[in-house]
Amino acid sequence: MRNSPQNSKITMAHGSGGKLMHDLIKKLFLQKFDNPILSSLSDSAIINLNGNPIAFTTDSYVVNPIFFPGGDIGKLAVCGTINDLAVVGANPLYLSCSVVIEEGFEYELLEKIIDSMKVTAEKAGVEIVTGDTKVVERGKGDKIFINTSGIGIIEKEDLSVENIKVGDRIILNGSIGEHGIAILSERAELGLDVNIESDCAPLNDLIQSVIKISNKVKFMRDPTRGGLATVLNEIVENRNFGIILEEEKILVKEEVKAVCEILGFDPLYIANEGKVVIIAGAEDAEKIVEVMRRHPLGKDTHIIGEIVDEPKGLVCMKTRSGGTRIVDMLVGEQLPRIC
Amino acid sequence: MRNSPQNSKITMAHGSGGKLMHDLIKKLFLQKFDNPILSSLSDSAIINLNGNPIAFTTDSYVVNPIFFPGGDIGKLAVCGTINDLAVVGANPLYLSCSVVIEEGFEYELLEKIIDSMKVTAEKAGVEIVTGDTKVVERGKGDKIFINTSGIGIIEKEDLSVENIKVGDRIILNGSIGEHGIAILSERAELGLDVNIESDCAPLNDLIQSVIKISNKVKFMRDPTRGGLATVLNEIVENRNFGIILEEEKILVKEEVKAVCEILGFDPLYIANEGKVVIIAGAEDAEKIVEVMRRHPLGKDTHIIGEIVDEPKGLVCMKTRSGGTRIVDMLVGEQLPRIC
Repeated sequence: MRNSPQNSKITMAHGSGGKLMHDLIKKLFLQKFDNPILSSLSDSAIINLNGNPIAFTTDSYVVNPIFFPGGDIGKLAVCGTINDLAVVGANPLYLSCSVVIEEGFEYELLEKIIDSMKVTAEKAGVEIVTGDTKVVERGKGDKIFINTSGIGIIEKEDLSVENIKVGDRIILNGSIGEHGIAILSERAELGLDVNIESDCAPLNDLIQSVIKISNKVKFMRDPTRGGLATVLNEIVENRNFGIILEEEKILVKEEVKAVCEILGFDPLYIANEGKVVIIAGAEDAEKIVEVMRRHPLGKDTHIIGEIVDEPKGLVCMKTRSGGTRIVDMLVGEQLPRIC
Repeated sequence: MRNSPQNSKITMAHGSGGKLMHDLIKKLFLQKFDNPILSSLSDSAIINLNGNPIAFTTDSYVVNPIFFPGGDIGKLAVCGTINDLAVVGANPLYLSCSVVIEEGFEYELLEKIIDSMKVTAEKAGVEIVTGDTKVVERGKGDKIFINTSGIGIIEKEDLSVENIKVGDRIILNGSIGEHGIAILSERAELGLDVNIESDCAPLNDLIQSVIKISNKVKFMRDPTRGGLATVLNEIVENRNFGIILEEEKILVKEEVKAVCEILGFDPLYIANEGKVVIIAGAEDAEKIVEVMRRHPLGKDTHIIGEIVDEPKGLVCMKTRSGGTRIVDMLVGEQLPRIC
């Protein structure tokens, strides 16, 4: 990276969830802050406090626009961090809230955002217990950035890519791409007239309902930046197995499809904020789907694919037309600042 | 606040550590995120995880410039969060690191900052275990903002303003105002030619050396934004006691004094990043000073004042000339973006 002059400056793609971001994280952060907890590159770190396994995670939210159909930056900041805790098997308990506000930002909007954080946190059963406020000069920020970090107690241990076996099923709780397209549709310059709401939601309750009834859950992840395709590629990377998806089981709402077609996007790479990928033993897959469908956030749950022996390290998809295609990792920038 | 139109937009002063910031926090964040842990307004939240008291804190760093004499934004982000944990009696163990980078930022500078975080964390014995990377468009950020959140195990319980009694001594580990003035001196527009280094340092080791030898420590706080005067005013606010300081015991380096005189600042309100105010029972005060002076970060420790019965709720100072003056709370902005 340091030897390629075209990469000597940070670009938008370094934050888009694709390959460039992963390279940056691996070549810089992981190498410098070298420790096994960080290197696991899990959605949350799992640390040991006096013998108790605790999940700890952080995310800065820079979404633009800050208000969008189905949510706002405050709701997103609470849900995103809750979800990062929930997918590692933790019961999310406490959040921090640190804001960087641009000078001149309307007090009324700040209040609206804080209200939204409050309501979302209450619904999800977490408390915001510590915070920080910074203000930067006009033109040195963009309205508001929010960092939330979170702590939860691990209730389901040993979730790991290492546990995944050929034959395991891949379960997803509904249709994809709504968050990214909702954000995009709000960007004035595009002049899109669509009506798609972000799927932004706290998944801790849905996930706990699964953990409660099955001990065959191997691994979970929320397909946010980079979308479903990126998460699945991260799972198979350098592994002794691959993934085969069934296109017809991966739901995409008509309006999301339409916008993607206009703009040349693939919904597989569009961010979600209320979806979870669960990889579980085949024997429990149907039972898990059943329980998830009973939850308001899991009504459209499907088994979307399975773990296969070959081709190793690749995500493939059986298309509706009967063919098979490789679902590769996103290289650069697709949609900037969607979270 | 909502009724005063002049305050309907966020100003730089809302982030400066003074009265406006405190009003914003109290009237907005505390009211919305209503819970006893947050309401304690401690430097770190103290939460209970499976019966263990844990400290949890967050800070976003937006310091400008990002490199300054004695440190950089990375070192600051690690020290600041460690110190917030240490002053509530915790042993800091784990940090998160979340960066918001402006498009076009030099990779080399990012690497330098991450190196600095690594070195500082290692020296202080903490691990950076989780992180996040976001990139915003050119002109929508300012080079780099860093959020660090931190977790530590409480080793000294029951530190609280509630424990403070008349006669308790106020101990400070050295001279004040260096961090703020170091930042200021680097701002090109001022054209100051001074040579002051920030005092930026992790205080966990110094603080642990005190806790180990005395159980008479009542309360600690690091005088960052708003300086020593603001921290002391927060301590006496609405309390049944006051503080009397001795000006001659509060060290201010000649160069800090000189810059303050030129610019009309009072060093009492200038930020520090390697100082801790310890309030302790009079019977242990000398012993604590002795131990602190043996530590590299405490060589210039002094008892700078004591808790008095009257005037209640006020910080007063016996001046060198023999008079007494009130040291009030800072109302608006003094130095923006010093942390």
